[in-house]
Amino acid sequence: MKIGFIGLGNMGAPMAHNLLKAGHAVNVFDLNAQAVQALVDAGAKAAASPKAAVADVECVITMLPAAAHVRSVLTAEDGVLAGVPKGVTIVDSSTIDPASVKAFAELARQHGNTFVDAPVSGGTGGAAAGTLTFMVGGSASAYEAVKPVLSAMGKNIVHCGDTGTGQVAKICNNLVLGVTMAGVAEAMSLGEALGIDVKVLAGIVNTSTGRCWSSDTYNPMPGVIDSAPSSRGYSGGFGTDLMLKDLGLATDAAKFARQPVYLGALAQQLYQTMSAKGAGRLDFSVVIKLYRQGSLSDNGSDSTKGDA
Amino acid sequence: MKIGFIGLGNMGAPMAHNLLKAGHAVNVFDLNAQAVQALVDAGAKAAASPKAAVADVECVITMLPAAAHVRSVLTAEDGVLAGVPKGVTIVDSSTIDPASVKAFAELARQHGNTFVDAPVSGGTGGAAAGTLTFMVGGSASAYEAVKPVLSAMGKNIVHCGDTGTGQVAKICNNLVLGVTMAGVAEAMSLGEALGIDVKVLAGIVNTSTGRCWSSDTYNPMPGVIDSAPSSRGYSGGFGTDLMLKDLGLATDAAKFARQPVYLGALAQQLYQTMSAKGAGRLDFSVVIKLYRQGSLSDNGSDSTKGDA
Amino acid sequence: MKIGFIGLGNMGAPMAHNLLKAGHAVNVFDLNAQAVQALVDAGAKAAASPKAAVADVECVITMLPAAAHVRSVLTAEDGVLAGVPKGVTIVDSSTIDPASVKAFAELARQHGNTFVDAPVSGGTGGAAAGTLTFMVGGSASAYEAVKPVLSAMGKNIVHCGDTGTGQVAKICNNLVLGVTMAGVAEAMSLGEALGIDVKVLAGIVNTSTGRCWSSDTYNPMPGVIDSAPSSRGYSGGFGTDLMLKDLGLATDAAKFARQPVYLGALAQQLYQTMSAKGAGRLDFSVVIKLYRQGSLSDNGSDSTKGDA
Amino acid sequence: MKIGFIGLGNMGAPMAHNLLKAGHAVNVFDLNAQAVQALVDAGAKAAASPKAAVADVECVITMLPAAAHVRSVLTAEDGVLAGVPKGVTIVDSSTIDPASVKAFAELARQHGNTFVDAPVSGGTGGAAAGTLTFMVGGSASAYEAVKPVLSAMGKNIVHCGDTGTGQVAKICNNLVLGVTMAGVAEAMSLGEALGIDVKVLAGIVNTSTGRCWSSDTYNPMPGVIDSAPSSRGYSGGFGTDLMLKDLGLATDAAKFARQPVYLGALAQQLYQTMSAKGAGRLDFSVVIKLYRQGSLSDNGSDSTKGDA
Repeated sequence: MKIGFIGLGNMGAPMAHNLLKAGHAVNVFDLNAQAVQALVDAGAKAAASPKAAVADVECVITMLPAAAHVRSVLTAEDGVLAGVPKGVTIVDSSTIDPASVKAFAELARQHGNTFVDAPVSGGTGGAAAGTLTFMVGGSASAYEAVKPVLSAMGKNIVHCGDTGTGQVAKICNNLVLGVTMAGVAEAMSLGEALGIDVKVLAGIVNTSTGRCWSSDTYNPMPGVIDSAPSSRGYSGGFGTDLMLKDLGLATDAAKFARQPVYLGALAQQLYQTMSAKGAGRLDFSVVIKLYRQGSLSDNGSDSTKGDA
Repeated sequence: MKIGFIGLGNMGAPMAHNLLKAGHAVNVFDLNAQAVQALVDAGAKAAASPKAAVADVECVITMLPAAAHVRSVLTAEDGVLAGVPKGVTIVDSSTIDPASVKAFAELARQHGNTFVDAPVSGGTGGAAAGTLTFMVGGSASAYEAVKPVLSAMGKNIVHCGDTGTGQVAKICNNLVLGVTMAGVAEAMSLGEALGIDVKVLAGIVNTSTGRCWSSDTYNPMPGVIDSAPSSRGYSGGFGTDLMLKDLGLATDAAKFARQPVYLGALAQQLYQTMSAKGAGRLDFSVVIKLYRQGSLSDNGSDSTKGDA
Repeated sequence: MKIGFIGLGNMGAPMAHNLLKAGHAVNVFDLNAQAVQALVDAGAKAAASPKAAVADVECVITMLPAAAHVRSVLTAEDGVLAGVPKGVTIVDSSTIDPASVKAFAELARQHGNTFVDAPVSGGTGGAAAGTLTFMVGGSASAYEAVKPVLSAMGKNIVHCGDTGTGQVAKICNNLVLGVTMAGVAEAMSLGEALGIDVKVLAGIVNTSTGRCWSSDTYNPMPGVIDSAPSSRGYSGGFGTDLMLKDLGLATDAAKFARQPVYLGALAQQLYQTMSAKGAGRLDFSVVIKLYRQGSLSDNGSDSTKGDA
Repeated sequence: MKIGFIGLGNMGAPMAHNLLKAGHAVNVFDLNAQAVQALVDAGAKAAASPKAAVADVECVITMLPAAAHVRSVLTAEDGVLAGVPKGVTIVDSSTIDPASVKAFAELARQHGNTFVDAPVSGGTGGAAAGTLTFMVGGSASAYEAVKPVLSAMGKNIVHCGDTGTGQVAKICNNLVLGVTMAGVAEAMSLGEALGIDVKVLAGIVNTSTGRCWSSDTYNPMPGVIDSAPSSRGYSGGFGTDLMLKDLGLATDAAKFARQPVYLGALAQQLYQTMSAKGAGRLDFSVVIKLYRQGSLSDNGSDSTKGDA
């Protein structure tokens, strides 16, 4: 299939690579010439604008930092809608707010196109390995249409419901994640301060009603799980600033829905404190340093310093 | 083995029954004559006081509502320490604060006895079925000594570390539980308000990084999990007031340890609000009503259904 | 002076009236024909568009619900910037985010105009009485230029600093207000539950270190202060939804500044809960019902009494 | 009048001095011999025990760190109740929980004495200057009886209602104080980050609806108010650990009253974080460092280092 791909960042680049590997023809566009060249070297065709990238394609995929970028890529003079043939489906894999999705879907509809939201989970590792989860919002037929393309980049392609529900699913999941991680951080720190061995404590929680991914797979206490970022100085993983972005989307969506999110709003402030103290690029499980005895000040400048 | 058992409430009574079934000789004491008679009918021997109940035993088990009751049962003129032979181990399965455990252990030590904290999880159902988890705090030898007795009442007998760590494990687990349940409640309510099907949302969370017992086993949104209290009007299960008691122990322990527990303290207020609005005896997952559209006031009406 | 006034809502209409009373010539524009007619009856001149309203003026004033409206009024084809003469100062008294202010100021600058943010406090009562406080962001000379005009509508015209700082001052003040009101609500409710006379309690707080406007002037407990909304069923006053709007601006501004606002974010959820339970149009001090014994459900019934 | 005074700490010592200055005869007891000697040098009579200190007095005053000390001083073998003549009023100026007050009052009643709770505000400065506020809980006649004695140590002697309400008043006031201080800290920090001059911001808040003691008298932002602890490195003032103690009493009282205290519980965690990071002995307004850019780590070891 011929695909136009806009946005070759940390996530978009490996995703586009996987499309090429699967045998698709891919036109790419990004403001970063180096990122474009790497894809061209792998067989993609560079385009001078989003409009040019989508002129002759059967599917468009966008992977961008925020809703403002998606709007611009869609509606600019040399944007997607200025060039894309009628009938082509536009898949946006950016993580953005559901209200913007609905606005973009309406713009696309007026232009004769279908807009599908398909945010991902799985991180840069999943993007490289082609094992992302796609949370797809759109009609059943739109879902069926995009599923084969998305399957080249991910292993779980989940239909969440109508347009926008892909974003809702992602936002709600990450709301739970942000809360459970901070909750585990405070329970593990409390247990440590009260004198229980932290591995024993994690073992009990993980086989009891406190069981959760943040404890049994990604425990924030160093030394509990060897493969977790906490055991390598909170480097790699899912950055505090990315968690902040997602909790910001959750509390914003809650505001528009007139829905309280007590724990989500509080967790956002906890991660915000860590970001303000210099830990924005460290894995979000670093929030445990807010609870443990000792200084926050070694979070910041160099993530390779690891845990004191 | 000959065992003295003090405290025949909703948990203690079925636990003592299971000791009888396993072939132990059991002396029982409780202020509630009816509860005592039921055990006597099953083969136990009634005692007129804690002191009398423990005069000739090899092991003492207490299962009481709070630390004040344990203190009284231990230290009263006709209490356990006034009657128990030196060398006998006293196992307290009440859920109380770790600081009290240490004080009781010291009292027992001065008297020539070993005190072991062994709070349980699994609820009245687990107590009846003999499938409780015991979280045991004490020396390795004390743990080995009580394990055979506890095995008659539970299926997981976990050694948590030194005296008091059984309580620490329980408190920390339930801190995570109280936080994750409220977190899931707000994410599910937000998703519902934003238009995603709640079963679809739960399915995604349960296979993603938001995965937790509060979502995949005990989801607070009605209709998601048939066996959860949320699907039967929040009756049965683990009462809001019991969760409040455990979060109170957690925030108290945190205060004494000079340890912040942001989400735990906030979750405590959420359950406190539900209790004040009449839902104290309903399952704690009823906290979702604080988030969902509609009145809180119908919580109270069927509160008599709740778990005592 | 000849003034163009855009936005004749609950606040804008009495403000424009006061300009007329002070002898200014006023062109008015609003989508609501009835609101326009009332001003015309008082001596204003109706305009068919923002552009028409500002064609021949010496000063422009806008008073609109949100940043999106200001943007539209400024930049539409028949908007202010399409018609206003170079050199005229544009005063925006809407409450909006500081980032939008900076963007609008830049648009105005490119067009040869000065943009001044001048949000108000004092409510509809202050607007009618001409006793508003204006918090002015802009250069010293811009402040001096607009001060005489604003003095016709308010009694305190405060220079806060450069462009945007008027909004910062308003947002920060209302952040404190939203927090102190909820804090007073929980202390008064706690005192009531613990058996102290609420008037005595308020008297002590008001002469001690807990002293604040939310307690000594606007106490949320009914019966403490006769003139407060709490003593008339929470009607009139400053609506919960307006407080929510301002706390939303505060937490958004904090998000962009990467600054934690723990209590502000939590207070936002408390008011959000009240709004979701039907109290959005009642005075924001109604938040005390979340704390006091009894149902929340009677909040909604007299919501029509509330302040629009 | 002849008075027995138990507890010569930072507050009790200057209070006892003021009783001497007012011409009262004072028997004193404290475990600290140096503190006793200083009072003896000023004219007091040292007693070997609380019992001895109250054997021949007309009034007893206790000023102790916590309820456990009061209980011990009252009920020990050589305690107050073992020696005090019937009919003498016992005034406890310690800050303790209202439930303990009721228990102590009942013990005193059984012994033929009246127990009055009279916690103070005003700090060590007010104790030295004799300008404390006393919040008195007890009958009207008990209040009248103790007022002349308390007037030697304070300038406001407020009758709060029945036994225990003095503590309720103090706890509720300090709950408001703890919340408003943290609220002002986050608003001032947000304003600073958004570029407004902090003195200008404080000026606006102090004349608007955000007005409160924490802003207009004790502003936590350095440089705003010269006489505030924030302008001298947070030395002196009301220590973070003392605020923590009072918020602990408030959240405990709320727990027993089944009353939610959202902001109080959250504020407690904020001060707890500061205490855990080493700022427990600095003035509680140091909480602003949790919000401002920069490290927390210079809070701790030496308060004379001041604000970076």
